[in-house]
Amino acid sequence: MLAGKTLSEIAGLIEGTVTGNQGTLIFGVTNIEDAGPQDITFAVAPHLQKAEKSAAAAVIIPRGASFSRAKPAIAVDNPRAAFARVLELFTPAPLIERGVHPAAVIAGSAQIGANAAIMPLAVIDEEAEIGDGAVVYPHVYIGRGCRIGKDCLIYANVSVYAGCQIGDRVIIHSGAVIGGDGFGYVDIGREHRKVPQVGNVVLGDDVEIGCNACIDCGTTGSTLIGKGTKIDNLVHVGHNDVIGENCLLIAHVGISGSVRVGSNVTFAGQSATVGHIKIGDNCVFGGRAGIISDVPDNSVYAGFPAQPHKDWLRQEALQRKLPEFFRRLRELETQVKELGRKK
Amino acid sequence: MLAGKTLSEIAGLIEGTVTGNQGTLIFGVTNIEDAGPQDITFAVAPHLQKAEKSAAAAVIIPRGASFSRAKPAIAVDNPRAAFARVLELFTPAPLIERGVHPAAVIAGSAQIGANAAIMPLAVIDEEAEIGDGAVVYPHVYIGRGCRIGKDCLIYANVSVYAGCQIGDRVIIHSGAVIGGDGFGYVDIGREHRKVPQVGNVVLGDDVEIGCNACIDCGTTGSTLIGKGTKIDNLVHVGHNDVIGENCLLIAHVGISGSVRVGSNVTFAGQSATVGHIKIGDNCVFGGRAGIISDVPDNSVYAGFPAQPHKDWLRQEALQRKLPEFFRRLRELETQVKELGRKK
Amino acid sequence: MLAGKTLSEIAGLIEGTVTGNQGTLIFGVTNIEDAGPQDITFAVAPHLQKAEKSAAAAVIIPRGASFSRAKPAIAVDNPRAAFARVLELFTPAPLIERGVHPAAVIAGSAQIGANAAIMPLAVIDEEAEIGDGAVVYPHVYIGRGCRIGKDCLIYANVSVYAGCQIGDRVIIHSGAVIGGDGFGYVDIGREHRKVPQVGNVVLGDDVEIGCNACIDCGTTGSTLIGKGTKIDNLVHVGHNDVIGENCLLIAHVGISGSVRVGSNVTFAGQSATVGHIKIGDNCVFGGRAGIISDVPDNSVYAGFPAQPHKDWLRQEALQRKLPEFFRRLRELETQVKELGRKK
Repeated sequence: MLAGKTLSEIAGLIEGTVTGNQGTLIFGVTNIEDAGPQDITFAVAPHLQKAEKSAAAAVIIPRGASFSRAKPAIAVDNPRAAFARVLELFTPAPLIERGVHPAAVIAGSAQIGANAAIMPLAVIDEEAEIGDGAVVYPHVYIGRGCRIGKDCLIYANVSVYAGCQIGDRVIIHSGAVIGGDGFGYVDIGREHRKVPQVGNVVLGDDVEIGCNACIDCGTTGSTLIGKGTKIDNLVHVGHNDVIGENCLLIAHVGISGSVRVGSNVTFAGQSATVGHIKIGDNCVFGGRAGIISDVPDNSVYAGFPAQPHKDWLRQEALQRKLPEFFRRLRELETQVKELGRKK
Repeated sequence: MLAGKTLSEIAGLIEGTVTGNQGTLIFGVTNIEDAGPQDITFAVAPHLQKAEKSAAAAVIIPRGASFSRAKPAIAVDNPRAAFARVLELFTPAPLIERGVHPAAVIAGSAQIGANAAIMPLAVIDEEAEIGDGAVVYPHVYIGRGCRIGKDCLIYANVSVYAGCQIGDRVIIHSGAVIGGDGFGYVDIGREHRKVPQVGNVVLGDDVEIGCNACIDCGTTGSTLIGKGTKIDNLVHVGHNDVIGENCLLIAHVGISGSVRVGSNVTFAGQSATVGHIKIGDNCVFGGRAGIISDVPDNSVYAGFPAQPHKDWLRQEALQRKLPEFFRRLRELETQVKELGRKK
Repeated sequence: MLAGKTLSEIAGLIEGTVTGNQGTLIFGVTNIEDAGPQDITFAVAPHLQKAEKSAAAAVIIPRGASFSRAKPAIAVDNPRAAFARVLELFTPAPLIERGVHPAAVIAGSAQIGANAAIMPLAVIDEEAEIGDGAVVYPHVYIGRGCRIGKDCLIYANVSVYAGCQIGDRVIIHSGAVIGGDGFGYVDIGREHRKVPQVGNVVLGDDVEIGCNACIDCGTTGSTLIGKGTKIDNLVHVGHNDVIGENCLLIAHVGISGSVRVGSNVTFAGQSATVGHIKIGDNCVFGGRAGIISDVPDNSVYAGFPAQPHKDWLRQEALQRKLPEFFRRLRELETQVKELGRKK
């Protein structure tokens, strides 16, 4: 059990201003619904009233928000960031035994870094290197010659194909596959003959890969995911894609092969691209956007084929008016016929 | 090999009425195409004629159906339910050796229920509890402190993160991941800083989770799947979602975070929602519906953005008429111009 | 390290014509960007100029292409096929130790073919047969009674349910699940009661299954994937589907249950079908096509509901003109009103 912290200690940590009893003791942090009288929670509009009435001991709120003085609070610039910080404070480090479990299978030429944890039934193949402090869960397979960086976290049942290079502090969630073959064939008559896929995947530092996501290897050369990019569950990234830094790829996104994506790009859920296109920096693609050609920097696109978001909104609104539109067209036809007859 | 059953024995089991030889011996049950002279099959319109001509020994048909008296049959109220019942009758229980296989890895503080089967190379972590009669296949990882209910069936290569709670008679298919981190970050400049995901997943009794489906844990608190809900392959359920009872989520569905879904709701394949919305009871969403706002009880929606199904059908039909529509518009323009000139 | 080959040796292999020094020594093959002075690459328009300026020792080009004589080249009929052939030439066979690793778990009645490789922590269940020369990676589970053909390649963390039949030279990528239960229930009131799924999956020779793809078993009978069909990552194939030969199913495709698909059919990414339909031979479905009824041979379809591709293109183009269309309609209304007043 972690010790309690006073409201004033917590406020110091998140650069906030306390309203109410500075000495209120906090023992945990959770969402509004689950918060009890020893917990702190956070709220922004329109949830402030709900937080006022909650059982929470205190609430993290935005500076300047209208909030009952009866409920202790800490006002901060960014409540969500402050909440994340307090979550870290109250989250006990997971209990992970360091070292190589005797039921792990480590090839003779593999190297395991200091303070790493290799759990039972993980398999580390020949010439693979596991960085200092990395944690490898059960049933993970790290292929021949892979390099896993420092302090990585590789959850159960992850597969990393031979030769992949993973940066530092990378998190790979269960079931993800790094370095599977690209979907490349040459057609000889009706036969789809496999093109050998001999490249690898390179993940930058601080990348996170969601559950059951798939990042294919380059046909030759590398598929690259830039530093700080976060990839959600069940996403597909094709062979030879180059994804920039600090991108977000949300669940079920599919990026076809040989696509270049800039930095700070967001793909909302189920959006997808054709292959061999170039997408600029700072773009945002709406849910289920279908991107079929190059996209310049700073674009906000939606729809399929993807187009500027405001055009898409307008078009969607007009589509809903099609019944009215057809009615008005019919009326006009009647009127014009009438006018013609009167001549 | 199971013993044969007479047609009259089977009819008793499914509350049906036999036509033809009551004593016909049946040894198996399968679909029309594969049924041989010792098998029973089932048929509803428009497949009744095909069943009449099949090699099957007998056919389960709807009461009142027109069906050849030359082919033995059992007429029932619900042929599909009757077929399922007969399938159970003829399906031998899988041969599963009970007990803990010596090549499984069971942590010292884990508890394994009576009559459970823990197959080779399953890993049960510290303080986890496996219910009586549960079956855990090879390469399954059950994280620290998880509780798996009675008579669960956890197929190969499933991963369950620490702290998840699984009800009784739950089936989890291969590759599914229960309790992976929610996709939650706070932006500090361009960096997406991870929000700790410290909640869990709670699956109600009789839930079924398809192959490679992903159910994320709550950021804090729980992601909840209600009793009797069935989730198909490759579905994504986000952090803190609350899904009601007896829902159906079909392949490739994606539910964003913090969504509340009522009971008896069906999401057809590839449908998806934005986060933080509330969906009522008894709703049906068509294939690839894109749900972007709250939905009242008993709604039948389709399209993206999702709208009442009949509106969507009408709109789709009108879209197909756009070429005709443009043509009529052009004609009107010509006629009006003509009328104007005549003045 | 593989030995070098002269340009003329390589040209002989790919039936090409050399320009430049026949004796140029080549030690590797890769894409234009990564190619160094000992590598050969390939280029087609519009990448020929980039290849001329690259560091590559030589370039495989299409016959008749305009290309600098300063850069050694081999002109061929099909540069992509030639590149694949040269890739095979320079790709060293993976170093795979044959035999059964002592840390694999092989049931007493399982049979392992000559020259097969069963890696550590693979589990082969009772009565399963592994063909000659097959390679089974760590953490693979092969269920009871499965048959795996000759020279198959089953990557890490694959699950194959009991009774599935896999042809020769089949490749199954990490995380794929073969034979999971179909999504079949009968509704008894609000309860979705499971229909036993007792069939299997049959994969023809030379099939390839992508990472985390899911092929469900037949409810009764088999789900069939024809010879030479290639399935990409995260694809879902439902129970009792029959997919023909040499089809391509690209990432995130979803085929509902009981669908019959002909041969040489391509489903582009995220396309999907309803259940119980029949799709002819030689069809092509565009990205995200939604197929809701039978489709004749040789169809090229797109959109949802799927329609002939050229109709879809026209309709898409007209949708973008809706704002103009509404404007023209309003103008007409004004003019007609004006004409009416003049009477």
